[in-house]
Amino acid sequence: MQRPSGRAPAQLRPVRITRNYTRHAEGSVLVEFGDTKVLCNASVASEVPRFLRGQGSGWITAEYGMLPRSTGSRMPREAAKGKQSGRTVEIQRLIGRSLRAAVDLELLGENQITIDCDVIQADGGTRTAAITGACVALVDALRYMQREKIITSDPLKNMVAAVSVGIYDGEAVLDLDYPEDSSADTDMNLVMAEDGGMIEVQGTAEGEPFTEAQFAQMLGLGKAGIDELIGLQKEALSL
Amino acid sequence: MQRPSGRAPAQLRPVRITRNYTRHAEGSVLVEFGDTKVLCNASVASEVPRFLRGQGSGWITAEYGMLPRSTGSRMPREAAKGKQSGRTVEIQRLIGRSLRAAVDLELLGENQITIDCDVIQADGGTRTAAITGACVALVDALRYMQREKIITSDPLKNMVAAVSVGIYDGEAVLDLDYPEDSSADTDMNLVMAEDGGMIEVQGTAEGEPFTEAQFAQMLGLGKAGIDELIGLQKEALSL
Amino acid sequence: MQRPSGRAPAQLRPVRITRNYTRHAEGSVLVEFGDTKVLCNASVASEVPRFLRGQGSGWITAEYGMLPRSTGSRMPREAAKGKQSGRTVEIQRLIGRSLRAAVDLELLGENQITIDCDVIQADGGTRTAAITGACVALVDALRYMQREKIITSDPLKNMVAAVSVGIYDGEAVLDLDYPEDSSADTDMNLVMAEDGGMIEVQGTAEGEPFTEAQFAQMLGLGKAGIDELIGLQKEALSL
Amino acid sequence: MQRPSGRAPAQLRPVRITRNYTRHAEGSVLVEFGDTKVLCNASVASEVPRFLRGQGSGWITAEYGMLPRSTGSRMPREAAKGKQSGRTVEIQRLIGRSLRAAVDLELLGENQITIDCDVIQADGGTRTAAITGACVALVDALRYMQREKIITSDPLKNMVAAVSVGIYDGEAVLDLDYPEDSSADTDMNLVMAEDGGMIEVQGTAEGEPFTEAQFAQMLGLGKAGIDELIGLQKEALSL
Amino acid sequence: MQRPSGRAPAQLRPVRITRNYTRHAEGSVLVEFGDTKVLCNASVASEVPRFLRGQGSGWITAEYGMLPRSTGSRMPREAAKGKQSGRTVEIQRLIGRSLRAAVDLELLGENQITIDCDVIQADGGTRTAAITGACVALVDALRYMQREKIITSDPLKNMVAAVSVGIYDGEAVLDLDYPEDSSADTDMNLVMAEDGGMIEVQGTAEGEPFTEAQFAQMLGLGKAGIDELIGLQKEALSL
Amino acid sequence: MQRPSGRAPAQLRPVRITRNYTRHAEGSVLVEFGDTKVLCNASVASEVPRFLRGQGSGWITAEYGMLPRSTGSRMPREAAKGKQSGRTVEIQRLIGRSLRAAVDLELLGENQITIDCDVIQADGGTRTAAITGACVALVDALRYMQREKIITSDPLKNMVAAVSVGIYDGEAVLDLDYPEDSSADTDMNLVMAEDGGMIEVQGTAEGEPFTEAQFAQMLGLGKAGIDELIGLQKEALSL
Repeated sequence: MQRPSGRAPAQLRPVRITRNYTRHAEGSVLVEFGDTKVLCNASVASEVPRFLRGQGSGWITAEYGMLPRSTGSRMPREAAKGKQSGRTVEIQRLIGRSLRAAVDLELLGENQITIDCDVIQADGGTRTAAITGACVALVDALRYMQREKIITSDPLKNMVAAVSVGIYDGEAVLDLDYPEDSSADTDMNLVMAEDGGMIEVQGTAEGEPFTEAQFAQMLGLGKAGIDELIGLQKEALSL
Repeated sequence: MQRPSGRAPAQLRPVRITRNYTRHAEGSVLVEFGDTKVLCNASVASEVPRFLRGQGSGWITAEYGMLPRSTGSRMPREAAKGKQSGRTVEIQRLIGRSLRAAVDLELLGENQITIDCDVIQADGGTRTAAITGACVALVDALRYMQREKIITSDPLKNMVAAVSVGIYDGEAVLDLDYPEDSSADTDMNLVMAEDGGMIEVQGTAEGEPFTEAQFAQMLGLGKAGIDELIGLQKEALSL
Repeated sequence: MQRPSGRAPAQLRPVRITRNYTRHAEGSVLVEFGDTKVLCNASVASEVPRFLRGQGSGWITAEYGMLPRSTGSRMPREAAKGKQSGRTVEIQRLIGRSLRAAVDLELLGENQITIDCDVIQADGGTRTAAITGACVALVDALRYMQREKIITSDPLKNMVAAVSVGIYDGEAVLDLDYPEDSSADTDMNLVMAEDGGMIEVQGTAEGEPFTEAQFAQMLGLGKAGIDELIGLQKEALSL
Repeated sequence: MQRPSGRAPAQLRPVRITRNYTRHAEGSVLVEFGDTKVLCNASVASEVPRFLRGQGSGWITAEYGMLPRSTGSRMPREAAKGKQSGRTVEIQRLIGRSLRAAVDLELLGENQITIDCDVIQADGGTRTAAITGACVALVDALRYMQREKIITSDPLKNMVAAVSVGIYDGEAVLDLDYPEDSSADTDMNLVMAEDGGMIEVQGTAEGEPFTEAQFAQMLGLGKAGIDELIGLQKEALSL
Repeated sequence: MQRPSGRAPAQLRPVRITRNYTRHAEGSVLVEFGDTKVLCNASVASEVPRFLRGQGSGWITAEYGMLPRSTGSRMPREAAKGKQSGRTVEIQRLIGRSLRAAVDLELLGENQITIDCDVIQADGGTRTAAITGACVALVDALRYMQREKIITSDPLKNMVAAVSVGIYDGEAVLDLDYPEDSSADTDMNLVMAEDGGMIEVQGTAEGEPFTEAQFAQMLGLGKAGIDELIGLQKEALSL
Repeated sequence: MQRPSGRAPAQLRPVRITRNYTRHAEGSVLVEFGDTKVLCNASVASEVPRFLRGQGSGWITAEYGMLPRSTGSRMPREAAKGKQSGRTVEIQRLIGRSLRAAVDLELLGENQITIDCDVIQADGGTRTAAITGACVALVDALRYMQREKIITSDPLKNMVAAVSVGIYDGEAVLDLDYPEDSSADTDMNLVMAEDGGMIEVQGTAEGEPFTEAQFAQMLGLGKAGIDELIGLQKEALSL
């Protein structure tokens, strides 16, 4: 098997994590997985959603969007259509859940962090790049809160990262770009914590169902990829 | 460990599948997983979405809704709010993908089947009950299409069913009801085909991440549960 | 004249009223007028709309919906379209007004009862079936409030029921099913109280205007039909 | 009994019908029932709604709106809220149905007439004033179509007018203004054709149910009022 | 050059300002610039938008709408489409800004005046007619507030009026009607205060860019026109 | 007078124009006016809006958006609110009109170019930066169309650029950043063509009206600024 990208099956694309990419957000990270570029901005607010008020606990949520021409052909702007697509909603819920698993929400106090993940350029794997970058922006926001004495201890429990794996031409491959993703039979997104804990496993058979053996193979590749990504996150954060 | 429901870890709730529940739909199934009751109506139309026109292939899609008082406290009606929730969108996309894996879309011709899954009463596991019931309604609609000579061969590739599994009090349990789901650490929804092929795996750590061992345990329970559910589907269809 | 249904002009369809149809709602009634089946769930809340706050009076309101495939051909789901149709809005306002006439709102205290009327299967007369069933669900909700000491006296003034009448082939007929309704010249919906008081009269000439004589005939049939329906409501409630 | 307005029970408010009120519409009528002023503009289009295409028949529809400050306290603008209220939808459906009863839709050919009824100033009875004025605007639009040879024969079957009647202080009164309407027990809107045919009867008990005797009384008053209104319409049209 | 309207380049259309046009609003003005007729209703409320609360300052805002058949061909009703057009939004923001420049918002106290500008008939220049009429309605509302002792001193700083100017056939012309506007190369809207202060200048090249010389010419015409309009406003207000 | 930015009154911020910033769009430009950064992506489509079909002429339109955290405090995401703000609509209409003045639409054939202007980081003047950058992206898209033989001659008539000017502390200043804009009395946006033709002049008195003399001063500064910007555009394009 030869991947369209020429990469080895277990090889990530070149990953770049640039902190302080914009100047207003409490955490601002541009994450690049090859040609996929996502800007992740973390905003801190001293207010929690209604269902949490008065309970002493915080919240982390995410929003996701693609610039209309981040893709090969222009997509209609969701703000102009007046509606977020089902795909958008699904992805931003996934990012939010994943990041909440990284943090002790009680230590966050009654504060909310919103992570905006906006895709500047898309080439497959935008949701996994978003989670990986958003976790770095989240750490920067948490550091800001500690510096500003909004919180007194560090709520971070675990770094969290995500990667996609798939079955391409019968074989498991890591971190699919768009051409690979388009012709893969199965697409799985894996979110894991630094300590190896699994946070989200979302495997979908696009065409043929996949076997348990393939599933295990994908899981293996994914775990190794996430280890590598968490290394890169920590390096970016000088942890 | 004692489940709140008193069931054994690997025990499904009593499942009932009632065909021809309403009289207008080409397939109409009431599926009950214990106190969870979902009405699945399949509608056949001789038209496909724009992106498929002229390609000789068919489509299967699903919509999902909960009656406002299907739950313990009344939920606002989505039609009145003018918006489907993120959860609704996520679920109906999952049901649609799962059912498309059951069918050879080319044999369906340029026809679309829409499966409406409406929750009459909710007690946990509505999405997995919906997929399990919808597949039976789908088969009835395919039979209708063959009787009416809309199609000449049977597009069904595989029966498909779904079940939830979770980690409750540290142990894997099958088919969680609402009280169990509310206090489980992990919730996984599994969609599989009759031949053991995996279609969707969606595992989510609600609180603590889960380990690979727990994941394997859940997978094992889920597979057995789905085998049982497919047996019940076939019985209902006299297959 | 021969009605398509074979019924005598003054003959109701078989009516069934099933209480406690679902388990969460404070009142839950499945009402069947022949093949028309409507689920009426009453929900009690200790809050009134803004315009009533602080006035010591309660409120009753209704919402109405049809499952997409309750009808012969599938109707688009209102939640997906993001908008309730004009017909839906008109019907739910009628149901709400009718039920408010059954109750002494001051005795209700600052509480609101919402009745969700969801059409499971449609064959004409869904709004009159809904009112008739909703009044039974309302009584169950009022009993619940008394049992739970939310209110101390019974706010029910009058049972309320509704029926349609029309001019079919020049003659007045009671309780039209869908084929009759489609070819009737006039459609009138009548809502009356147990004591013979008139609550709503809505007569509409679909094609030709109707004469006063026809109007009087319809009124006569309708009154008799409502008497019969109120008898059935009371039987169901063991009043 | 003394009406707040000082009028006799069977007395209409001063009615004025001004044709050609604006210059663009094919029919443009300002109708005044006392202080209630509604501008009714009829627009002719050579296109029918989708459900009528290719059937050789025409359509008449209506839209209704209130200027935000047509009322005592400012109402939010529906265009700004992004939604028409239930009341608006109900009224515009009523106006459309009423006008369709005035016309032989087959003689209209595949053309549509839309009547916009916009309330400039409100003092009760806006919907009945709207129907009464809209029918005059409709006749002007039909005359325009004949002049322009869009149609070759006159589709008008019957003039149509509308009036409200109510029970005020136990007695039936005609054409209620806002203070009367606010304290009436029952509000009935009556739409009738020139030949005495009944088109719409919508009686609603606001507080206490009404008796059949009261209903008959209201019907009597309403019929006389409509006769008078149709006389005024014809005078305005020099019929 | 000959204007389609036959007017001299610097000649306004006949302008009429009718106060107290409807009876509910605190200021109600029908303004006519030739065949353009706009109803401007000012409503006083003792509440300011959230961003101003507790600051002791008031607010003035405007809403704008066109009746569907105010124009040559019927425009869809914005309330029915569920959305105000970009043009509507732009115009109502302009009206609001212009009127706020007329008033000392601190002297207004924590009160808001909303001016609804509804176009009854359109023939070009609706936004400039609206501003000119709205300022008169605003003065009436301010007088009302003083009479009712809601405020103790007059917040009016300056009368404000507006006019359009354009380049037609190479020459600057004042107050364009619809046929002139449709074939003009440049359209400029000018809002000025009584003391000659400039409030808004909005010049737009529809086809060819305009030169500075043309711009100066337009400015000159516009200033003279506004002087004339402010004279007419004051006459109407007997200032 | 000392500007908060320390710049001379007639001094632009450092301007950077980076072409080919993303890889999918036919023209992709990141424009920076100091800390204001806007990504302008031009997309070519072989389809024009309905009102232009069959007329042999093309169209240019623009959409504008701000990333939620492009600003000092997070703004709600318009796609999530389901509505573009009035400000957004106003700005994207302005950008579209400005760019259409740069191009001979007939030479464009029946093709449309959409320019998406998305603000990555905001510090005042986002609309003028957007126009200036969008014109460069537009030229790249026109070059692409010529290379691909979609069009045979160059439709560009004129480079177009935009700048803001204002009155700060009584004196005219060029290209205001956010702190300057917030405390300026007047804000004017100027769009001009390479040949000195004026395309848009939008001056708004935020507090006090401005005098003609101030207006002339602002115009002078603006013209010089635009000359400089057009020089930078040409340099970027190697014109």
